[in-house]
Amino acid sequence: MFSGAQISLYPMSDDFVAIILGAIKALEPYRANFRIETDDISTLLVGPPEQLFPAMRDLFVAAAASGKHCVLSATVSRGCPGEPDDPICTPISASIADSPLEERIRQARESVDGAALSGQAVAAQFSLYPLGAGHHMDEIYGCIDFLKSSGVFDRSKNFCTKLRGDAGPVFATLSEAFLRFGAPQGHVALDMTVSANSPSAV
Amino acid sequence: MFSGAQISLYPMSDDFVAIILGAIKALEPYRANFRIETDDISTLLVGPPEQLFPAMRDLFVAAAASGKHCVLSATVSRGCPGEPDDPICTPISASIADSPLEERIRQARESVDGAALSGQAVAAQFSLYPLGAGHHMDEIYGCIDFLKSSGVFDRSKNFCTKLRGDAGPVFATLSEAFLRFGAPQGHVALDMTVSANSPSAV
Repeated sequence: MFSGAQISLYPMSDDFVAIILGAIKALEPYRANFRIETDDISTLLVGPPEQLFPAMRDLFVAAAASGKHCVLSATVSRGCPGEPDDPICTPISASIADSPLEERIRQARESVDGAALSGQAVAAQFSLYPLGAGHHMDEIYGCIDFLKSSGVFDRSKNFCTKLRGDAGPVFATLSEAFLRFGAPQGHVALDMTVSANSPSAV
Repeated sequence: MFSGAQISLYPMSDDFVAIILGAIKALEPYRANFRIETDDISTLLVGPPEQLFPAMRDLFVAAAASGKHCVLSATVSRGCPGEPDDPICTPISASIADSPLEERIRQARESVDGAALSGQAVAAQFSLYPLGAGHHMDEIYGCIDFLKSSGVFDRSKNFCTKLRGDAGPVFATLSEAFLRFGAPQGHVALDMTVSANSPSAV
C-alpha cells in the first residue's frame, strides 16, 4: 500500500532558509527508509506509514527550537488508488487497523500515553478524509472517541479538530488517527497544520 | 449548504505580523458577506462558495506584494454533513454544478480564460476530496480534463496537482475545480497551498 506525505515547513523569520536546512538534518535517521523529493512547494516523503509522523515530529521540533514562530503543513495519504504499490511503503509492524474498533481505540490511547515528551509545546489542527468505499461512520465516531480522550484534544472547529500539548503526544495522536481508523486497505487522507511559538497563541 | 475555509498566511519574514495585518485589509470588501473568526492557527471564512477563492486571492496577492516569500494554506469545504445550514452560505448565483459534465468543463475553462491578471506569479498545489456517496469517478476525470487545459497546469504530483501562473487564473482554476465538480449538494473538501517569491522556485 502506497503511503507518504507532502510536507512543508514555514519559519516566520528572515532566516527561514537556514532554519529549514538545519531542521532537515533531523530527517537523517529516517532517510534510509524513505524516498524523499523536494520542489519549491513541498517535500515528498514516501515510506512506511508508522514512520511518517515520527519523522515530521523530529523535523518540526528541530525547526521550533529556533524559537521562531514555525508551522509545518502536510498532506498525508495511504492507500491512494492509482499510486504504485511501492515495497518501501510496507508497514514495519503488522496491520494495526484490523482488530475490533473498541480494541483499536484502547491501543491508540495506550500509544499516546506512552509517547515521549519533547519539551516543545505545539498547537495543531487536522482533517481526516476516509475516501471511497469500505469506510463506515462507526470508524469516524470511534476516532472522535479516541481524540477526545487523547489528553491533547483542544476543540472541534469547522472542518477540522484542534489539538494542543507537547509535540510528542500531539504527533502520536495524529499518527494513531491516521493509522488505526478507516478501512485497513482503504484510501485515507489527512491534512494537518502544526504551529509553535505563535505570538497569538492563547 | 454550509461552505467556508480555514485559511492561514505564512510570510517567511521577521515582519510577519505586520505583513499579515496589512494583507487582511484586502478582505474588507468581502467582510459583509462572510462570518470571520480567527485563532492562533487559522482564520475561518464562512460564506458564499463563489467568493471564497476571490477573497483568498486578494489576501494572498496583498501579502506577496511585500516581496517576501509568502505561503497561503487553506482547507476549503462545502456541504459538510453536521455543519448548520447557514443562510450566509447561499450561493449568489444559481447552482453551477448541475449541468452535464462536458458543459461544466467548457464553462470552467471560460471562467479561467476570463480571469483578470494580478501581476503576481504564484505556484500552487491542491488535493480535491469528494466525500460520501453521490460522487463518481467521471467527475474526477472531468476535473482533471479541465485542469490540464486550464493554461496553469504544471504537473501531477503524488497526492496532489500542481499549478503555476498568474494568481488571477490560478485562483480561478482552484475555484472552478471546487465549485463545478462533484455532486452539487455533496460534500467536497479541497486542501491547497499557494506560494510566491520562493527562493527555490524553478
